[in-house]
Amino acid sequence: MGIDVGATKIAALRVARDGTVLARARCDTPRGSAEDLVDTLAGLVKQVRGDRVVAVGAGLPGMVDARTGALVFAPGLEFARAPLRGMIADSVGLPVRTDNDANAAAWAEYRLGAGRGHDHMVLVTIGTGLGCGMIVGGRLLRGSHGYAAEVSHLIVDPQGPRCECGEHGCWGVSASGRAIARLGREAAAARPGSALARLIGRGSAGAGEAVTRAAEEGDSQAVEILARVGTLTGRGLASLANMLDPSVLVVGGGPISAGELLLGPARAAFTSWLYSPGDRPGVPMVPARFGNDAGAIGAAVLALDEFTGRSPDGS
Amino acid sequence: MGIDVGATKIAALRVARDGTVLARARCDTPRGSAEDLVDTLAGLVKQVRGDRVVAVGAGLPGMVDARTGALVFAPGLEFARAPLRGMIADSVGLPVRTDNDANAAAWAEYRLGAGRGHDHMVLVTIGTGLGCGMIVGGRLLRGSHGYAAEVSHLIVDPQGPRCECGEHGCWGVSASGRAIARLGREAAAARPGSALARLIGRGSAGAGEAVTRAAEEGDSQAVEILARVGTLTGRGLASLANMLDPSVLVVGGGPISAGELLLGPARAAFTSWLYSPGDRPGVPMVPARFGNDAGAIGAAVLALDEFTGRSPDGS
Repeated sequence: MGIDVGATKIAALRVARDGTVLARARCDTPRGSAEDLVDTLAGLVKQVRGDRVVAVGAGLPGMVDARTGALVFAPGLEFARAPLRGMIADSVGLPVRTDNDANAAAWAEYRLGAGRGHDHMVLVTIGTGLGCGMIVGGRLLRGSHGYAAEVSHLIVDPQGPRCECGEHGCWGVSASGRAIARLGREAAAARPGSALARLIGRGSAGAGEAVTRAAEEGDSQAVEILARVGTLTGRGLASLANMLDPSVLVVGGGPISAGELLLGPARAAFTSWLYSPGDRPGVPMVPARFGNDAGAIGAAVLALDEFTGRSPDGS
Repeated sequence: MGIDVGATKIAALRVARDGTVLARARCDTPRGSAEDLVDTLAGLVKQVRGDRVVAVGAGLPGMVDARTGALVFAPGLEFARAPLRGMIADSVGLPVRTDNDANAAAWAEYRLGAGRGHDHMVLVTIGTGLGCGMIVGGRLLRGSHGYAAEVSHLIVDPQGPRCECGEHGCWGVSASGRAIARLGREAAAARPGSALARLIGRGSAGAGEAVTRAAEEGDSQAVEILARVGTLTGRGLASLANMLDPSVLVVGGGPISAGELLLGPARAAFTSWLYSPGDRPGVPMVPARFGNDAGAIGAAVLALDEFTGRSPDGS
């Protein structure tokens, strides 16, 4: 079983060895203590576990200590520093593995998805924020404590907007879902009669989702926004590729449904920022296979791999 | 034996298992073909090899194919794409390993130097350009082809100078030896009577070296330049640490002789850019143990490790 704990929602899936989702449940993330969260998770496990679940993996939205499985820090969650792995295990009576949610998603794509067969892989997910997980030599890149793959403050746009950290053009503030929503609202305000403005005004979805939908329908402002975010995504991916030399780049998140409207500009920017692109093989940039389920599926596969002997990091 | 092929000089060392240098030779890098280079290397090997040399490692200044040992691209060298590993081996009659020079230096620091015992380590060398090597899980981070750890175009200074790549404030143009020299010349031109201006004017050393020396003697302009470069170095190292979560950062290169004048500001900037520093252990930032010999010593140890069974990357 895999659980994906988000800042607002929690998804729990029962997952077959090949990644097929056999059952699912979903609820809001409780606003209270770590005990409240564990109770909520136990309820979800009960709903979907069935007879044959051997382990539970949980992807958590923050810094997860690789040794203890504790959630050390998560923006917006009160129960940071809680020893969640042990607490969940005690509560559900199954072996539990916790990991950062983006690491879990990267493991899903590497083991069963768009990165299969690529022992050096980077996944970037354009969610509300920006998620990143990296595979190096067939292992999750966790670093010495489990806090690796934090890429939100890589600078991708020196002339870009100011980040809360004080710098200009950090990746997280320039090319995340939040950035798309901001750019969408600005464009809508500038041209109130546009298809994009109407979609945003209707308010049936968030501004970011409206941008993706309007771009798919050919709205020129929305197309431009996705091209801009694609370009900056490619710039960021080039920084990561210069550092890690992966053989594939996987891009996930809602805006990926717009396909080449985002990936085309991302590929062009990637190639122009990659070090000496003429002297090395091209690096395919492909959409993620698993959408919103990536975190939960990856967490399930991580747990299964660990408890059946295939360790994701050799430890 | 280890050889460090630089853009202008080549150094060859006979090295004991503990890193002690037993013999050394040095000459200019030939400007001609790959055959000229191999002849030069063979001459150096002859000078220092002695009786007990079992293998030769060569650190090369560019992209080295991890599978074939070929030098694929090196700025300023004519003989890129040459299958140097095989050519050198044929010429000297010993097993040869080639690698990127900064990878070799990182391996020296990890196995025998300032990074010993740290299975997740980053080395940055402030040379004419900027060198970087990374250890992940006790292995050299080479990536899928051997081209990893290229950090010169990470942006560390959005308001900084324009790089040849078109962006502003890339690490290589903002905080390398070249940058120190440029800042030194600018400072000297602005205050012709200063100690720094006199040192640069005398011309007995390069402008970069003059900055380091003037700073050690208390010249305020020079101290400021090293502080600025230290700050940007710390900013770059924070980007790398956010990605890799190392347990130690090693900084090498000539300016490191100025010690805390550079490392102090680097530590402060590092902590302020590291993601959530209050929730994780501190990361020591230490000077490299091996100075100019790091590349050759590391190349020797890499070769020795490979040919005596300890593989640096598990392959």
